[in-house]
Amino acid sequence: MSARGPAGAGPAAIQLSRIMRPDDANIAGNVHGGTILKMIEEAGAIISTRHCNSQSGEHCVAALARVERTDFLSPMCIGEVAHVSAEITYTSKHSVEVQVNVLSENILTGAKRVTNWATLWYVPLSLKNVDKVLEVPPIQYAWKELEEDGKKRYEEQKLERLVTKQRNGDIIFPVFNPEPYTVGYSQSSLIHLVGPSDCTLHGFVHGGVTMKLMDEVAGIVAARHCKTNIVTASVDAINFHEKIKKGCVITISGRMTFTSNKSMEIEVFVDADPFVDEPKERYRAVSAFFTYVSLSKEGKPVPVPQLVIETEDEKRRFEDGKGRYLQTKAKRQVQMQPLTQQ
Amino acid sequence: MSARGPAGAGPAAIQLSRIMRPDDANIAGNVHGGTILKMIEEAGAIISTRHCNSQSGEHCVAALARVERTDFLSPMCIGEVAHVSAEITYTSKHSVEVQVNVLSENILTGAKRVTNWATLWYVPLSLKNVDKVLEVPPIQYAWKELEEDGKKRYEEQKLERLVTKQRNGDIIFPVFNPEPYTVGYSQSSLIHLVGPSDCTLHGFVHGGVTMKLMDEVAGIVAARHCKTNIVTASVDAINFHEKIKKGCVITISGRMTFTSNKSMEIEVFVDADPFVDEPKERYRAVSAFFTYVSLSKEGKPVPVPQLVIETEDEKRRFEDGKGRYLQTKAKRQVQMQPLTQQ
Amino acid sequence: MSARGPAGAGPAAIQLSRIMRPDDANIAGNVHGGTILKMIEEAGAIISTRHCNSQSGEHCVAALARVERTDFLSPMCIGEVAHVSAEITYTSKHSVEVQVNVLSENILTGAKRVTNWATLWYVPLSLKNVDKVLEVPPIQYAWKELEEDGKKRYEEQKLERLVTKQRNGDIIFPVFNPEPYTVGYSQSSLIHLVGPSDCTLHGFVHGGVTMKLMDEVAGIVAARHCKTNIVTASVDAINFHEKIKKGCVITISGRMTFTSNKSMEIEVFVDADPFVDEPKERYRAVSAFFTYVSLSKEGKPVPVPQLVIETEDEKRRFEDGKGRYLQTKAKRQVQMQPLTQQ
Repeated sequence: MSARGPAGAGPAAIQLSRIMRPDDANIAGNVHGGTILKMIEEAGAIISTRHCNSQSGEHCVAALARVERTDFLSPMCIGEVAHVSAEITYTSKHSVEVQVNVLSENILTGAKRVTNWATLWYVPLSLKNVDKVLEVPPIQYAWKELEEDGKKRYEEQKLERLVTKQRNGDIIFPVFNPEPYTVGYSQSSLIHLVGPSDCTLHGFVHGGVTMKLMDEVAGIVAARHCKTNIVTASVDAINFHEKIKKGCVITISGRMTFTSNKSMEIEVFVDADPFVDEPKERYRAVSAFFTYVSLSKEGKPVPVPQLVIETEDEKRRFEDGKGRYLQTKAKRQVQMQPLTQQ
Repeated sequence: MSARGPAGAGPAAIQLSRIMRPDDANIAGNVHGGTILKMIEEAGAIISTRHCNSQSGEHCVAALARVERTDFLSPMCIGEVAHVSAEITYTSKHSVEVQVNVLSENILTGAKRVTNWATLWYVPLSLKNVDKVLEVPPIQYAWKELEEDGKKRYEEQKLERLVTKQRNGDIIFPVFNPEPYTVGYSQSSLIHLVGPSDCTLHGFVHGGVTMKLMDEVAGIVAARHCKTNIVTASVDAINFHEKIKKGCVITISGRMTFTSNKSMEIEVFVDADPFVDEPKERYRAVSAFFTYVSLSKEGKPVPVPQLVIETEDEKRRFEDGKGRYLQTKAKRQVQMQPLTQQ
Repeated sequence: MSARGPAGAGPAAIQLSRIMRPDDANIAGNVHGGTILKMIEEAGAIISTRHCNSQSGEHCVAALARVERTDFLSPMCIGEVAHVSAEITYTSKHSVEVQVNVLSENILTGAKRVTNWATLWYVPLSLKNVDKVLEVPPIQYAWKELEEDGKKRYEEQKLERLVTKQRNGDIIFPVFNPEPYTVGYSQSSLIHLVGPSDCTLHGFVHGGVTMKLMDEVAGIVAARHCKTNIVTASVDAINFHEKIKKGCVITISGRMTFTSNKSMEIEVFVDADPFVDEPKERYRAVSAFFTYVSLSKEGKPVPVPQLVIETEDEKRRFEDGKGRYLQTKAKRQVQMQPLTQQ
């Protein structure tokens, strides 16, 4: 038997596969969105780190800078095999775009479904000096149009990252004896002590670990609101502006911002507290919006209780959420057309 | 109690051994007290479940009812092997007393140290009807005195369990912009979604899983207060009055109640929210006091900042904590005498 | 981006990849042999379950029946990516042969090394009736010789499985105050309560989970004997005669049987105790021989202390171990020749 190389061969592709276990899922047997986000990020980190070290020079680790909005197209179940395939689709001078798809395979029936597509941006940080961003070796494109499209996506995300850097100051205040279905009723937070297995070779938290915890909080907020079986439907673009170091305590907080007839939007914040070895203050590391749906016992989406708005701030956030909801709905209708015409 | 080995075997003794891994420890390499408490409880659960099923009849799972106060005599490190030995030392009609000792072995140098003794009480619950407590087969005692001593311990703990059942109503309120070293400054809470691996065959949370989470919160409170390497020094008796079911969200909250010159006492509450499948209200499942010490880089205890008291309630709790501290100190001096004379 | 299929395409191949984390390794940073064995078995279980369900009919899960002897050619380290590739190489009426190779990739330097080859045998058990072995759909062979070679391997392993079924009765007795370097000095055992994530859809323990625990015990025995950094060098063929059910307590025991100049052979037994729900007695589920080497700080094999033999039984086992050692050495010299001529 000959030694076979990594899947799809070439330095520009990788595939991770794994059986989904009870610990990866909720009690209804649906795999947590966070489990899938973590696998997606691991695939992206491997392929972009491999690529950025493919030319001789200073060694580096690729750090997650941004994940584009991703939809969970259908739930994955315990016992199914998740196949996560990643390839590099664009490189700028200092960043790498990775596209990932996730396939769920029922090995008993042979049925396969695409459950996710995702696009991630990585930046190579020097192993010797974590604040130094190295240059990315350029990839080869099969067609000139692929490079031009990639450049467009690069410019767009760069702009959006600048914008979100401003609006990270919000804090979730505790509420006493909240009324059912208000924001305070379901808001939740958890804390996590960053351990060695959460971290890269640099000693900084993997983006996928952070996303998994964010999905966990969002899921608890959603379940507290509607008290049914809930699953992740989508995650808005997430920007990772600040790194989180090994030994930090991180607080992950979530609150509901918007409900449509059959979906809930939850805003999640991650704050890092580098309390042991540094004089640094607590800081906001990441924030994001998760959308959840509520499922019946047959796995069909069911209506969710409307969010009860109490303050001006909550009203503003609800309207913002509604804007995102309508925008996404419009975009999806446009994207669906070419698919149905194929 | 002498250090018992794996020998003796028979149905009335068991030993769990495991290498301590990076994720079991803090960044200074000291194994979390909670990791050890979880191993202790697993050993106790196995041996008492095995014993309670040793006579033909209805099958059952032993559920943790109480853990007596335990001291952490010396820290355990990554790479060491923890040996947890348990034996049944007393049985009443409906409960089992298990005594456990923990030995830490450095397999490179061969050095061994006793790190803990613990006493746990279990109750056999029917597998068919979780609310039915079954009868416990009696054990044989080598001497009549062993049975009499056991009966005394049984009566004492029974009394204490009745008392603590009353005082479980306290709630931890959030504080805005707290001053350094106040109670509000370090208080913390985390939430955990109970998954399948947290649970027994009944679908209820293992007592050890709960204790591990409690130690995690207490450790974060202690670290926030003194911003150094902290380790668990002892845990007061814990009573498990209410079971926690799979699928619950549990909130574990901790606040500092007392500081001596070199130790901190942290009160921890566990509240369960059975939000998915049941109409049951949120309830207090467990509460306990953890004592932590702060260590220098050489592993020696160092002074901790004094707790700043702001309210009457805090003052009362501080005095109560001082009472527990002085009582323990007195007891320890008594217990140490025979040891030093050996 | 189009939906790409599983690696290497075709139903007869799969690849699992994963970054090695601190918890996968010992304190010197070498990945445990057991971590690799577990990944190998997961790949084998996926590919053979998929194949056995590829024709319409009763659904089944492939259960591990046997792993052929495997060598660990070079150690893997934290931060490297393990690529585990599996393909089906032979099918009999009721069993599937899977060949697996493991590649270790340093994504910083691009260096790749083959670390393992392994051959596993699976048997399809009906999901409805776990005691019913189903028929395996035949695979297509590129050349007739491949089928004939496979048949030869099939006959050989079938014979060997019959033989080992007899010799499973040995027990490891505890020894008090053992002398250094005797068998009793390093013998060890650990206990594990089988949880849901350890199990297949049938509710039986994955073979890979058992092998990981066996490697853990063998590693503790080896480290106790020579008190240095030790790594798995090889595992002899393992036969899985008896299944282990969820909820069992398993005891994994290891004792040293033989030392050569630079290697140690450790015999490992797995006993299952279905203590809660069944009237079944404790039984021997698996046994195997692991070979370990001791490494210097530079990662070179160093001499190990000779095992001190005290009893006739130990002497017999030592001679048996010597026989296996010499046989393997002879085989390896034959196999190495074509490789060195390439």
